Order: sequence, then C-alpha cells, then structure tokens
Amino acid sequence: MGRGEHTRDVILRQAVALAYRVGLEGLTIGALATEVEMSKSGMYAHFGSKQALQLAVLDAAAADFARAVVVPALREPRGEPRLRALVAAWIACGRERRPGGCLFVKASTELDERPGPVRDRLVEHHRELDASLARIVRGGVADGRFRPDADAEQFASDLYAVMLGFYHRHRLLADPRAEARTARAVDTLLAAIRNPGEVTA
Amino acid sequence: MGRGEHTRDVILRQAVALAYRVGLEGLTIGALATEVEMSKSGMYAHFGSKQALQLAVLDAAAADFARAVVVPALREPRGEPRLRALVAAWIACGRERRPGGCLFVKASTELDERPGPVRDRLVEHHRELDASLARIVRGGVADGRFRPDADAEQFASDLYAVMLGFYHRHRLLADPRAEARTARAVDTLLAAIRNPGEVTA
Repeated sequence: MGRGEHTRDVILRQAVALAYRVGLEGLTIGALATEVEMSKSGMYAHFGSKQALQLAVLDAAAADFARAVVVPALREPRGEPRLRALVAAWIACGRERRPGGCLFVKASTELDERPGPVRDRLVEHHRELDASLARIVRGGVADGRFRPDADAEQFASDLYAVMLGFYHRHRLLADPRAEARTARAVDTLLAAIRNPGEVTA
Repeated sequence: MGRGEHTRDVILRQAVALAYRVGLEGLTIGALATEVEMSKSGMYAHFGSKQALQLAVLDAAAADFARAVVVPALREPRGEPRLRALVAAWIACGRERRPGGCLFVKASTELDERPGPVRDRLVEHHRELDASLARIVRGGVADGRFRPDADAEQFASDLYAVMLGFYHRHRLLADPRAEARTARAVDTLLAAIRNPGEVTA
C-alpha cells in the first residue's frame, strides 16, 4: 500500500465512524474535512465527490460486517453450528455498536425514496447478504443437516426480519428480553428446517 | 369542536403528512409554518414548542395506525381471523404509504440515541402496540382457538419483526416476493400457536 492509499484508508475509517453517527446523507465532503481536520480539496482529491465517498463508506461498512459476522461463521461446521455462530456474531454486533447503531438499518430508511447509485449499492449489499444466508442454508441441506425441502431464500428473509426485530427491541425499546426473544425466534426458524433424522447441535 | 380546535386539527393533519416526508426531527415550527403558509407565531400559539408539536404528531400518527389496522381487526372473530385481518391491514398500510413510508420505523432509528420526551412517547406507542398484539393472542387462547401454552408476548415480538422485514423488503429492496415471504412467515407463526383441536380458518 502506497502512502496515498494508506492516508485514504485512514480517512475512510474515520468516514465510516462519522457515517454511523450522522447517517449516510449527513456524510458530506465538508463534514468529513472538519472531522479529520483536513482541507475540503484534500477530501475531493481522495474521494472525488460526496457520492463516491458514500459508496466507499458503504463498501467499507459491508466489508466490516462480513469480516465480523459472516467470515468467522464460515469456519464453523456447515448447517446449524454455522448459522448459530453467524447469529451470535450478528447479535453481538447490534448490541455493541454505540454510538450510531447500524449504518445499514439507518441508510435503509434514509434512502428508500432516493433513487440513485448510493441506494442501488445499498440494495446490492443487502442482496449479497441474502445470498450468503441462503448459501449457508443450502450448504446444510447438501450435508443432510437441514431438510431437503428447506426454502433457503425464505429462511434468509425470515432471519433478516428477526434481526431487524432484535435491533428495534434492543435499541429503541431497551427491552432486557430482546436477546431471549431473538434466540427463541431463531430456534423456531432452525427447528423448521432441521432434518428430523439429524441429531441437534 | 370550536373553531380554534378545528384549525389546530387541520394543521395537525398537515404536520403529520410533513413528518412522513421529512422525519420527526425535521418537523420544526418553521418548516410547518412554511408548509401551511401561516406565521411561526401562529404555529407557536397552536402547539407551544417543537417538542409539543412532535408529540402531537406522534399521537396523531399512532391514532391513524390504530384506526386503520387495529380497530377494524377487532370486529373480526377472535383468534386467527382477527390476527389475519390485522396483518392484512398492516401490509396494506406499508404498501400504500408513499411518499414517506412509516413514521414509526423512521423515527425509531432517528431517535434511538436521543433521550427525551419524544423518544419516550415513541417507546410508549410501541409498547402499546405490543400489548394490543399480545391481547389479541390471549383472546384466541381464551376461546380455545390458540394453544393454552401460546406465548402471547413472544408472538407480538415475532410479528413485529416480520412486519419490519416486510417493510424493508418491499420498500428498499422492491422485492416482488416481499408479500409472499411475509405471508409465509405469518403462516408459520400462526401454525405454532394454533390449537391442534381447532379447525383452521
């Protein structure tokens, strides 16, 4: 990594942290320049435009999520252990992220009526997550751990909803049972796809 | 209703519509004055402060939701028909609300780290919805339509998560299968609490 790339990377980390606090729409070249105490022209040199900055931040945040939640789960045995590891890391991620909360949840409501490349990228990252979740389910089906008729896409959709529910209940409602509720919902989803012939994990 | 009250009510309807577009945080006395083409002092006379305006808008939006989604369901027979009517009205509500989307979903991420009376009121409305959902489940248990061991609070939590998932999948992802996915998730929740001795609706 050259020096210019290194500087850009350091600034990008700060831009991600800023976006968690102010939202993706609040992430302007000017706000970032103030945050890192550098000139706006320096920021333009590194990122080109507000939109390019927002795209870079979304990609960096998606890579962070994959590194923290998806990749470690892939080291676990296929099927239920892998899905449970993923959910545990995801919950930890939602529980600990203060201040700011989840950039993807926030951006989803911020951008849902703002067509353009940033919204498109956000949708793309969500579709990739759906695809990763469905792939994990299909891996468990291939190994005989999940039922042959398990609907991997439905599971991905259901699990994402459960995690949105966790985020809401934990953060806004500060419900002390948020995690227990989520664990039960996940148990129900897993019970529905578990191969009856298989010993539970 | 006196003339002053009537005027306030008309302005409040416009304030709710404005909040759907700009979010609860964007709902200032100045923005509302511009929207209704009246003076800021007139707005202060009707609402007192930005915070009082935000509280009035939250209450009005909660009443709208109750009127559109909860109250009509209560006319249906207890148990599954009542829950299905509620879900159908809720989905219609999420599908049709453009522009702006759901004020409660937006406000949840806007306010989750802003302690104060507006956040408290938002939490209160969510808890009331949880309680209404749980009450509907318990009504079905009392009538023998749902299992005696059905966990009404868990059902309320699960159903809210499913509806958040619908909102996300329909609005951000524009997934044409969003409704079908949601219907299947609701079927699964209902199947888990249905009394085995009961004929399905």
